[in-house]
Amino acid sequence: MKRLIIIGGSDAGISAALRAREIDPSVEPTLVIADEYPNFSICGLPFYLSGEVSDWKHLAHRTRQEIEQAGIRLLMDHHAKAIDAAKNLVLVIDPEGRPSELAYDRLVIGTGAESIKPKIKGIDLPGVFLLRWMDDSFAVNKWLTEHEPKSALIVGGGYIGMEMADALTLRGLSVTVVEFSETVLTTVDKSLGERVAAELNRHGVNTATGVGIESIEADGKHLTVKGTKGFSAGADLVLVAVGCRPSSTLAAGAGIETGIKGAIKVNRRMETNVPHIYAAGDCVETWHNLLKDYTYLPLGTTAHKQGRIAGENAAGGNREFEGSLGTQAVKIFDLVAARTGLRDIEAKEAGFAPFTDQFETWDHKVYYPGAENLIIGITGDRKTKRLLGAQILGHYKSEVSKRIDIFATALFNNMTIEQLSDLDLSYTPPLSSPWDPVQMAAQAWVKNFS
Amino acid sequence: MKRLIIIGGSDAGISAALRAREIDPSVEPTLVIADEYPNFSICGLPFYLSGEVSDWKHLAHRTRQEIEQAGIRLLMDHHAKAIDAAKNLVLVIDPEGRPSELAYDRLVIGTGAESIKPKIKGIDLPGVFLLRWMDDSFAVNKWLTEHEPKSALIVGGGYIGMEMADALTLRGLSVTVVEFSETVLTTVDKSLGERVAAELNRHGVNTATGVGIESIEADGKHLTVKGTKGFSAGADLVLVAVGCRPSSTLAAGAGIETGIKGAIKVNRRMETNVPHIYAAGDCVETWHNLLKDYTYLPLGTTAHKQGRIAGENAAGGNREFEGSLGTQAVKIFDLVAARTGLRDIEAKEAGFAPFTDQFETWDHKVYYPGAENLIIGITGDRKTKRLLGAQILGHYKSEVSKRIDIFATALFNNMTIEQLSDLDLSYTPPLSSPWDPVQMAAQAWVKNFS
Repeated sequence: MKRLIIIGGSDAGISAALRAREIDPSVEPTLVIADEYPNFSICGLPFYLSGEVSDWKHLAHRTRQEIEQAGIRLLMDHHAKAIDAAKNLVLVIDPEGRPSELAYDRLVIGTGAESIKPKIKGIDLPGVFLLRWMDDSFAVNKWLTEHEPKSALIVGGGYIGMEMADALTLRGLSVTVVEFSETVLTTVDKSLGERVAAELNRHGVNTATGVGIESIEADGKHLTVKGTKGFSAGADLVLVAVGCRPSSTLAAGAGIETGIKGAIKVNRRMETNVPHIYAAGDCVETWHNLLKDYTYLPLGTTAHKQGRIAGENAAGGNREFEGSLGTQAVKIFDLVAARTGLRDIEAKEAGFAPFTDQFETWDHKVYYPGAENLIIGITGDRKTKRLLGAQILGHYKSEVSKRIDIFATALFNNMTIEQLSDLDLSYTPPLSSPWDPVQMAAQAWVKNFS
Repeated sequence: MKRLIIIGGSDAGISAALRAREIDPSVEPTLVIADEYPNFSICGLPFYLSGEVSDWKHLAHRTRQEIEQAGIRLLMDHHAKAIDAAKNLVLVIDPEGRPSELAYDRLVIGTGAESIKPKIKGIDLPGVFLLRWMDDSFAVNKWLTEHEPKSALIVGGGYIGMEMADALTLRGLSVTVVEFSETVLTTVDKSLGERVAAELNRHGVNTATGVGIESIEADGKHLTVKGTKGFSAGADLVLVAVGCRPSSTLAAGAGIETGIKGAIKVNRRMETNVPHIYAAGDCVETWHNLLKDYTYLPLGTTAHKQGRIAGENAAGGNREFEGSLGTQAVKIFDLVAARTGLRDIEAKEAGFAPFTDQFETWDHKVYYPGAENLIIGITGDRKTKRLLGAQILGHYKSEVSKRIDIFATALFNNMTIEQLSDLDLSYTPPLSSPWDPVQMAAQAWVKNFS
């Protein structure tokens, strides 16, 4: 029986363990987990803080019992301090601070990422929070419960910032979002970001864009955030969500090569440069299916896939990661913004000659009640007419997220934009039109191509 | 300038005309339309009769003005009586009964289909209706308005029967559905059909399956429907929806070859065997992408695609119909049932060695409010492990219809079921899970494969 050690109990680690057991039931993986929350859905934290998830325990994809019954050993509150790759050992510190050594035949590193903590004055003040792990969310929740803040300022207009603006508004706070770029949600095109900002405003959230934060000051429990362009705003709670970086110190200390933003370098079998050591999830460089190159693109979906592949290969299988397309969706109040593949600017940077067209239509036949607007942006290659990417913005009941998946499936299969009209997609008047909006947008791209 | 005549003003005909204009703006298509309702969404009739569509005029995909402004000439209430293929003429009867001849360089036949009218006693009684065209729906609506029926009996548990059971219940009638087969909605597997029947029952609709209808009798305005197994039920309105057959008499009279169920034979350029004559939509045999053979599978989506291709080729283009996958979705009260590709039994008949697995899960992370159950059936080939088909049943807010489209896009690209796990599909907790249900079902298929 192979000794399989996995460092990290989030998406990548658990996926690796489960898959290893499927491939070889004689493997009994041991997970070294830094906290007490194995297999928790950290993507669900905003919904816990909003009050929509009544009990934080519901955020577990699987309970501790379910994981253990699947034949996986959990070492909770254990910190992996060092890897001795020459001796195939992991040095672990238990909850009482006692060190021990775990021997492995195969090691999977799934240490994830950590929130970027900007070096500004006041970042460590009480009432100022980062949000990535369960403990972070407990700290925010405690503050919300004990201090009953009336207002919140969110630094960063990305996914977490957007979801937390929604969540804290739902919780009754008055929310302001401050973003360094010209629009919020810079993962989609500016015109879509502006509509997201309008949606925020419609729900009472203030937005300040093009503003860099410079300091946070405290006056009792009240905080004042100051920034460029003379920005100054008070808040009872400040959440800093300006992105994350890979947690790769442990790996680097063991001689494992790192690359972009310090992420662990892996091949498509999820092997590091050190024999018998695999890595997966938010701590690694990710192979991009369209760029045909590595990038840093931490996503829960990718972590699950990579972890599964690392586990399969660690257990004796042979499977390659097919690559990310950067497919993402986020719900912000009544809207969903989704994307897959490359945007125009990204396609240009990658050496393509892109053409991008935006199309607006209804999610279903407008004669049937409840039709909502969809905005669909398509990016294609001028030379090959191949689909390179798509973005959709629309009401959250408009099947936006699974419509982006039609594009994602088409991208995976290298389809041209013209071919999208050949797809036999479903139609019933309450849910679509005889040409699905995805196809109408594709036909508009072809027509407007210049 | 080419003289393009199109017979039929529904999905296929209008699509052909619009596409011909796009390909060659010098073409001025003339449409010969048997009624006054060009480009009406006949898929929307149940929603008009339910009262959800406030004005029947809203059912028009485009208004008459919009069509004419697009450079298309409409001859409404004109009947094409004969085609003289030797002389390239269509004999047309105008609303006053006067004949005239229209010369064509290219002719597109889009005569559609007609309801099957079973030869049973009482089928022509007042209060007994078929439903296919606008006039049919006006007749039903008139009966509903003038006679205020309290109860309805629907013969046939297919798409129209299901939608009309929903529609007439919404309109306040007590509804009974009688179906000849063992379950309603025989386009999906029996276990799903049974859940649809339960949904009907939950909304007060009675169902009688395995019953053949034998006669309809009138007692004043009240009707009594009798069938096999001693079935007898009274109703104030009877709707007979037992399928359709291609309207191909006109074509056959011109020497155009017909095949399955009398449908017009076409090649993938939508050409008939007679030079310069194309046909498209519910009147033709349809190329099936998986069967690699022709079948009769009349659907609005297919009619749009085939019409577009006929129009493109008639205007000098060169494009082939890529084939149908039989992708369909129908909303029945709170449920949506959707399918694409082949079911187990169909795959067997087509010479595949299929394996089918059914999987049940939530449409999104269950910790987020509003999660609903999805049942996903996947059929794959035992030898190649290739995806052959899928069926999904779930709540209509669960993105069932666009999830089936992920399968449809995968089918179009000949993906294996294992490859579905490589797709980079979108995830946010309110709308999916890190492995989309589509992928979880695919993984279950692989695991349960035997």
